[in-house]
Amino acid sequence: MAKVAIGVDFGTLSGRALVVDVETGAELASAALEYRHGVMDESLPGGKKLGLDWALQYPLDYMEVLEKTVPEALRLSGVSADDVIGLGIDFTACTLMPVKADGKPLCLMPEYADNPHAYVKLWKHHAAQAQANRINALAAERGEPWLKRYGGKISSEWAFPKILQTLEEAPEIYAAADYFIEAADWVIWRLTGKQTRNACTAGYKAIYHKRDGYPSKAFFKALDPRLENVVEDKMSCAISPLGTKAGELGDGARLIGLNPGTAVAVANVDAHVTMPAVKGEPGALLAIMGTSTCHILVSKEERAVPGMCGVVEDGVYPGYFGYEAGQSCVGDHFAWVVENCAPAAYVEEARVKGVNLHSLLTEKAEKLAPGESGLVALDWWNGNRSVLVDVDLTGLILGMTLQTKPEEIYRALIEATAYGTRKIIETFRAAGVAVESFIASGGIALKNPMLMQIYADVLRMPIRLAGSAQGPALGSAIFGAVAAGQARGGYDSVFDAARAMGKLKDTVYRPNERSADIYDKLYAEYSILHDTFGTGVNDVMKRLKAIKRSAV
Amino acid sequence: MAKVAIGVDFGTLSGRALVVDVETGAELASAALEYRHGVMDESLPGGKKLGLDWALQYPLDYMEVLEKTVPEALRLSGVSADDVIGLGIDFTACTLMPVKADGKPLCLMPEYADNPHAYVKLWKHHAAQAQANRINALAAERGEPWLKRYGGKISSEWAFPKILQTLEEAPEIYAAADYFIEAADWVIWRLTGKQTRNACTAGYKAIYHKRDGYPSKAFFKALDPRLENVVEDKMSCAISPLGTKAGELGDGARLIGLNPGTAVAVANVDAHVTMPAVKGEPGALLAIMGTSTCHILVSKEERAVPGMCGVVEDGVYPGYFGYEAGQSCVGDHFAWVVENCAPAAYVEEARVKGVNLHSLLTEKAEKLAPGESGLVALDWWNGNRSVLVDVDLTGLILGMTLQTKPEEIYRALIEATAYGTRKIIETFRAAGVAVESFIASGGIALKNPMLMQIYADVLRMPIRLAGSAQGPALGSAIFGAVAAGQARGGYDSVFDAARAMGKLKDTVYRPNERSADIYDKLYAEYSILHDTFGTGVNDVMKRLKAIKRSAV
Repeated sequence: MAKVAIGVDFGTLSGRALVVDVETGAELASAALEYRHGVMDESLPGGKKLGLDWALQYPLDYMEVLEKTVPEALRLSGVSADDVIGLGIDFTACTLMPVKADGKPLCLMPEYADNPHAYVKLWKHHAAQAQANRINALAAERGEPWLKRYGGKISSEWAFPKILQTLEEAPEIYAAADYFIEAADWVIWRLTGKQTRNACTAGYKAIYHKRDGYPSKAFFKALDPRLENVVEDKMSCAISPLGTKAGELGDGARLIGLNPGTAVAVANVDAHVTMPAVKGEPGALLAIMGTSTCHILVSKEERAVPGMCGVVEDGVYPGYFGYEAGQSCVGDHFAWVVENCAPAAYVEEARVKGVNLHSLLTEKAEKLAPGESGLVALDWWNGNRSVLVDVDLTGLILGMTLQTKPEEIYRALIEATAYGTRKIIETFRAAGVAVESFIASGGIALKNPMLMQIYADVLRMPIRLAGSAQGPALGSAIFGAVAAGQARGGYDSVFDAARAMGKLKDTVYRPNERSADIYDKLYAEYSILHDTFGTGVNDVMKRLKAIKRSAV
Repeated sequence: MAKVAIGVDFGTLSGRALVVDVETGAELASAALEYRHGVMDESLPGGKKLGLDWALQYPLDYMEVLEKTVPEALRLSGVSADDVIGLGIDFTACTLMPVKADGKPLCLMPEYADNPHAYVKLWKHHAAQAQANRINALAAERGEPWLKRYGGKISSEWAFPKILQTLEEAPEIYAAADYFIEAADWVIWRLTGKQTRNACTAGYKAIYHKRDGYPSKAFFKALDPRLENVVEDKMSCAISPLGTKAGELGDGARLIGLNPGTAVAVANVDAHVTMPAVKGEPGALLAIMGTSTCHILVSKEERAVPGMCGVVEDGVYPGYFGYEAGQSCVGDHFAWVVENCAPAAYVEEARVKGVNLHSLLTEKAEKLAPGESGLVALDWWNGNRSVLVDVDLTGLILGMTLQTKPEEIYRALIEATAYGTRKIIETFRAAGVAVESFIASGGIALKNPMLMQIYADVLRMPIRLAGSAQGPALGSAIFGAVAAGQARGGYDSVFDAARAMGKLKDTVYRPNERSADIYDKLYAEYSILHDTFGTGVNDVMKRLKAIKRSAV
């Protein structure tokens, strides 16, 4: 019987287990389960109301996913637990929780059950913005060297703003917590009986650097004297590179239908774990495209790249620097056009044709030649994550005439997101980080060939597509196979595992020379507007936001 | 019995006669008739096909309007022809025709009936752009002093481009024509038996200046040697100020139901003639708002105002300088939103409420505070007529987010047209031409109080509305009463006539101080964008148009 590895992908609303043939990468079966408590953004299980911008989760929901989906996927695959050589998981991040020394979540202790700060703060918990602002201001004032690894700004979604919020608003929880730990690492701890902390979340979300460590005690003390020893008191644990083994399943293995002794990989993040699933080699830029886009890139070099989300050694592949960048609004732009700029006649036409509005607008937009609309847009409907790292930037469209049609706006926004991607790639290259190939994954990439062709033309790069619709779970299975190692039927190197188990589609979108020439001209216009409105030449977008805030 | 004057307004598709009480301005009755041949833009009456951008009319249609609508309006009013003291007309312009020395239109002569150039070239005949371009290039090269009176550019709609097109494409028509004459003046000629040329069309459309006359022979010779004597050969006739009497009805008066000897005013243009109909005094800016907006302003001073459509002495009122400016896209912007950015849910909501989409969008937009949308737009969907005089400029919207709604775009475009008006007023004032009050006419002004309030707030000026829905015909009747003179029951001064017969609504839109303060800030942003994209700092709009032309 072929050996398999299991990957479990923990998303925002549900978890999914995937059984993968270790030799071929064939996806044999999968099973998914929604979290029983979903995202708690209004109240706690006991009924206590939450504030604005809160987003919590319930840790036992993750265990339920393991207990139900792993056995179910295994059953569907027809594979015996004896042939499962390894397990890997990936998670949303930063998704952080306070626990006792034995790993018990504080929210499971009756005395804290009514305290919101005792629960898992989900990645999209946005109630720590004030804390993030103070961290950023202090870091800039002190000239903290780590700030530039994060494009000059720490996000409110990350670990220390969340920890600081807990300290300030619920000091009793801060005091009671022996650790603050990523949910990803907590699940691995539960599986193996051993605490590990993965290099990916530590690096991207907790300002950890392989050689420099965390920010200094002096910094934390200046932020709040009670935080001086936060790292040794609340986070103390070695950091494990991705691609290493966290441990093995213990006695609890039977609960998830597996054998004790099965190898378990160090945890991972959903975006980053996708890289081996698409056979991503160093120099390949992986774009995970959805409502927003996340870019992952691996390099031998550590460089300060302006406006990146982060660079982390061992953060994607052991021995390499993993870079992350992002566009905060991609598919959301196109949805905005569908919701706001689709006239009734188009709705009727789509109904008659039996297609959705995205398909209809795409059908009309693909009849347009590059440049034919006369439009150029800035893709900042939701701010700019990279290269400008500025949430206060807003959208722009230029070139409208009385003949401008909704499909032209639709296409202009697709093109704008492609220019945004090119800007990120050019910024990497200018900083000395090679970008040699481009791989796209995510629903939008797989569903819209016009969009992919526009990206190929704008980037002047061939584009390959992810071969699996379940990239994160496949990536986790690959890391599971690496955790098992070659001796147990897996792989000793994640690169070998990726080559065997990763998948790309045969389709290649190649740049059309004539289109690329026109897009060079349009990108030059985009760049001028980008710099005018994004770098302080004309701060009208910020002034309009200020007027807006004072107007309402 | 009260004395009346009759005004006849010749529009693009129809003509309308209005009977007005000379003492009170009361509108007693009116009658309208569509032109039998309408606008000929595809073929001649005999079937001959026309080229792209042609637009012709048939001169006898104008006479039919007089013969049918004047008697009908009189009949409906119950007034006797004996009590009609004067007649005035206004017309579209430049609407130009070639005629023989006796006034016979060439198109009525069998030998020319199949020649398109023998017909009336309507104002919106746009097939003489090449000729306009050459006139502008030559005038700029020679530093012709008259160019600055027209904002630096002669429109292809005006007289000399149309005459030059005739010369080049149909020299036999040029040779056979004893005169090229405005349809307005031709109708007056037919009524009085005497050729006159009104100062309004001569000044705004034929580059005539009261003291400097027409462009020089040297200019015309340089343009085409055959044109050297175009003025004396084809246009020779004194120019009559507005407010003077062209003559009296002759024997043909019975054909239009009036008495011989009835005073006839010098002809006028539909926009300019509206000024007395709204009691417009010098210093009042009249905005005639529709798909586009035309601004008329009267002053004691002659100034070179950058980017104006024209300044003409006696062109609106005798003894004053009449200025014209324009915004090439106003209501058309709002129609664009309705056609392209009204989602199906809005269409359904409008249907349920039984209102049109303009009303629905207005209802939603008026709930917004100034500045609340966070948007600012440039109102250049159809280029910019004043102050920049540039058809190659295009539209811009800035400040979009994922929360931006169609009604916010709708309101932002209304605001942008108000900023465009403010820019024109500030340009007048900066050039030393006083703008002391603001009067709005046209359907949009009367129908949309929100729009008028926005204009009042943006301009920081009270706004009065035209009192008549038939401003041009009322204005023509006023000039008819002035042609009759006080001795015959009319007026010796157009100002006295305007005060008695002109009408304003009681409604006054007064600026709201708080809104005006916010709009000052938004206008400052508009001005920066206006200058960036309109004055050559960033010519992206022109480059996008060039790319567009090469793309298709």
